Amino acid sequence: MNGAESLIGTLVAGGLDVCFTNPGTSEMHIVAALDRQDKMRCVLGLFEGVVTGAADGYARMTGKPACTLLHLGPGFANGLANLHNASRAEVSVVNLVGQHATYHLRHDTPLTSDIEAIARPHSKWLRTSRAACEVARDAADAVTAARTPPGRIATLIIPADVAWSEGGATAEVVGPPKAAMPAAETIDRAATLLRSGLRTAILLVGRSLFGRGLAAAGRIATSTGAKLLAPYPFARMERGVGSPTVERIPYVLEQALELLKDFRQLILVGASPPVAYFASPGKNSVLVPRECKLHTLASPEQDGAGALEALASTLARGGSPLPHQKAKRPPIPSGEITLSGLATTLAAVLPEQAIVVDESMTSGRGMMAATTGAAPHDWLANTGGSIGIAMPLAVGSAVACPGRRVLCLSADGSGMYTAQALWTMAREGLNVTTVIFANRIYNVLKREFSNLGVGNPGPRALDLFEIGRPDLDWVSLAKGMGVPGTRVTSLDSFAKALCEGFRADGPMVIHVPL
Amino acid sequence: MNGAESLIGTLVAGGLDVCFTNPGTSEMHIVAALDRQDKMRCVLGLFEGVVTGAADGYARMTGKPACTLLHLGPGFANGLANLHNASRAEVSVVNLVGQHATYHLRHDTPLTSDIEAIARPHSKWLRTSRAACEVARDAADAVTAARTPPGRIATLIIPADVAWSEGGATAEVVGPPKAAMPAAETIDRAATLLRSGLRTAILLVGRSLFGRGLAAAGRIATSTGAKLLAPYPFARMERGVGSPTVERIPYVLEQALELLKDFRQLILVGASPPVAYFASPGKNSVLVPRECKLHTLASPEQDGAGALEALASTLARGGSPLPHQKAKRPPIPSGEITLSGLATTLAAVLPEQAIVVDESMTSGRGMMAATTGAAPHDWLANTGGSIGIAMPLAVGSAVACPGRRVLCLSADGSGMYTAQALWTMAREGLNVTTVIFANRIYNVLKREFSNLGVGNPGPRALDLFEIGRPDLDWVSLAKGMGVPGTRVTSLDSFAKALCEGFRADGPMVIHVPL
Repeated sequence: MNGAESLIGTLVAGGLDVCFTNPGTSEMHIVAALDRQDKMRCVLGLFEGVVTGAADGYARMTGKPACTLLHLGPGFANGLANLHNASRAEVSVVNLVGQHATYHLRHDTPLTSDIEAIARPHSKWLRTSRAACEVARDAADAVTAARTPPGRIATLIIPADVAWSEGGATAEVVGPPKAAMPAAETIDRAATLLRSGLRTAILLVGRSLFGRGLAAAGRIATSTGAKLLAPYPFARMERGVGSPTVERIPYVLEQALELLKDFRQLILVGASPPVAYFASPGKNSVLVPRECKLHTLASPEQDGAGALEALASTLARGGSPLPHQKAKRPPIPSGEITLSGLATTLAAVLPEQAIVVDESMTSGRGMMAATTGAAPHDWLANTGGSIGIAMPLAVGSAVACPGRRVLCLSADGSGMYTAQALWTMAREGLNVTTVIFANRIYNVLKREFSNLGVGNPGPRALDLFEIGRPDLDWVSLAKGMGVPGTRVTSLDSFAKALCEGFRADGPMVIHVPL
Repeated sequence: MNGAESLIGTLVAGGLDVCFTNPGTSEMHIVAALDRQDKMRCVLGLFEGVVTGAADGYARMTGKPACTLLHLGPGFANGLANLHNASRAEVSVVNLVGQHATYHLRHDTPLTSDIEAIARPHSKWLRTSRAACEVARDAADAVTAARTPPGRIATLIIPADVAWSEGGATAEVVGPPKAAMPAAETIDRAATLLRSGLRTAILLVGRSLFGRGLAAAGRIATSTGAKLLAPYPFARMERGVGSPTVERIPYVLEQALELLKDFRQLILVGASPPVAYFASPGKNSVLVPRECKLHTLASPEQDGAGALEALASTLARGGSPLPHQKAKRPPIPSGEITLSGLATTLAAVLPEQAIVVDESMTSGRGMMAATTGAAPHDWLANTGGSIGIAMPLAVGSAVACPGRRVLCLSADGSGMYTAQALWTMAREGLNVTTVIFANRIYNVLKREFSNLGVGNPGPRALDLFEIGRPDLDWVSLAKGMGVPGTRVTSLDSFAKALCEGFRADGPMVIHVPL
């Protein structure tokens, strides 16, 4: 057994079953090992940003790591931006990165780079394998590291001669440490705060935004009147009919301040205190009022969901009725395209158990409010602010949950970053409906320009914000990658296209001109 | 004057006149400064890989740096792969990267990252500005560093509050040190070797592959019978009628060994000894025979062109006739598409002073041999092996040389990495004709898989090499980005399309199915 075979064998034995990849020559022996291993599904991306973003989506929906297989330093670098987002999502990812054969490195050939230096800023765990007999142990350690709560990016660099040399044997993956519960007095302190009568919010991230964590948070909210909040960048939120209502802190500074101004107590569950996305001259970065007390119920590494369950029991022994978001499915609107009309349409037609991936930027700011009472669904947001996450995340979600429909909401500017994901959707026959909000501008920049007090943008600045001239035609782009597309001209045709997309076998793109 | 204004003012005073960019919120004050500065042309890329690759192309054709303006760590990371290529091309680039306001950083907001750590592996010069009154000096130092021979990547990180604070003043750019001449005895030693009668080759890179450096190398070759070689990855080569013939060392290991096996002396001009691109089990990485003596005429930092001129004078006082590549313009072939037919067509119709950007991979391996006698032109290759360079490089070359025609030869697989460059070509009305060799496979990988002795790829491996299913349709992709395209079906229609492209006002895409 060579190093590559022991590597892949160990990952499979450790429960990994999907490899998102764009390999190169230095990874050929790993590809050969994958070729002989039928328990690892390989999904090709035509650009590494697709690969790493898909791994993020897969991890968000399964709670376990996918592996990526990337080509040397430049291949890893191409995946960095979405690894930045994945790291902010606190998900598990195992990156495998090829390296030149150890004896070849000293020649400093064209593709040589310091991969450890490139990988370090976004890898909580990082190692270069030194020998075929060690790579399985390294892989097992990488999986354990990736699964360490709340979820980590682990990167294993494999020199080509380590992969091709004999002497490998699979290793066993040691279960990651379970997330620890916070101390009893921390939970009691939270209960005391919630009973104080002061206006209180609970800020949820990670696993406290879905499943049993969110259910417990809902019970607490019902029994105490506390408000449930999520930061603007969250990884995954369970929503719609039957779910507790969680309000997302808005991106726009003034709106965030307005939402938070009356709270006197904020309980953090795996979260940091909310802050402004960007600094503005003369404005405070901190969003909570000075007089608001902060209490950390659980740190990111701790069992936030368990802590919420314990807190819910402390507050209401015997249990209180679950708060249910009531169904609020509006009729399908018709007429001219408006942002609120698009949001209402979404709320009307969203299928049960849809996964909504949202990078709709300024165009989609009304989407979450409109869909609180829609059919039950999960909502995935951009966690790290690096644009180009939506379509890759949709790929990973669809691979993770083949029985569910994925709705991908993308702005046109962010969509252009990693549009290659459309090809992977077609290749894999993924049930993803991608809506492109084509407003032909980096609208957030135009707004920020004014907000920062720089005055109105002149023609040279506008040229850097406006991405029309020429207009992007997403129906053609999709066709170029084998995905059927349609351009809608009214809310009626938008609703029709969405329904077609949700029924279709495979992906579809809807271009919404704004 | 705020920091941003002093920054841009200094760059303009230092001779920089093009900024390739995709800015974000943290760079808005720099955008505002650009907005008020009419001596800096701003060129927007819809992805940072386009931005950095364009800066590389601009530098290769002008010999001076463009600046890039990138958004925080993820924006820089997206540009890394083409900066890797630019760094291997030894060109000058000045990267400006925004950072959060200094006082905002401690909040570790979503887009926060360690930009210095991300930028360090690909920046020969790196600094974070600390104050508005220092940023001009920092910018001037960055330009000097970038222009230090042979050419460097310099990265300046500018916190938002440094950009927006008052107290800036422009600074003067100190001229970079001139490249030093090698010692007289080094030149004499080369002359002695060349007079020895042993079979000798001269390996040229950088500025010795065009202009006066290449002319001198040609005189040396004529008077001594030495062969002129270029490494497989070279930045820019002057070619065609009237140029000395330089042979490129082939990518394929066996072919490279065959070319080099009879040389007993190799003179290096800014070059390293030739090595295999990748290691193969049981094969040597070094390409020159053991009995071949190596002599460094000039290091990369030294004046290779000057050294060649001095050597030429030493060898042939009074001067010898310039060797001229004779015109060899074949008739336009017709009939079915073949790789050799495509190469012949190119040789037949290439316009005077064209700039050929070549990332045609396995499909284009006959292109250079076919065009030795074509109209005079420059040839730009992938220097660092990170794919996705061609279209960005074409953008930068076209911006640098508006009077010349750019022919961009791209494989389909590499083209998908940074196809967003097509949009910039349309936006800027660049005269770039892009030929896509659509063989629907990462053919180099399929070949390497077999070469590495792993056997024949099975279905799972083939799925990672073959990028058909669905086929990429480059006419639709181009249309999606506002570029007219055509799919050719014969050599006749290829020739016709090429000629149309060379006459067109603005960009065009030709999809060649293989």
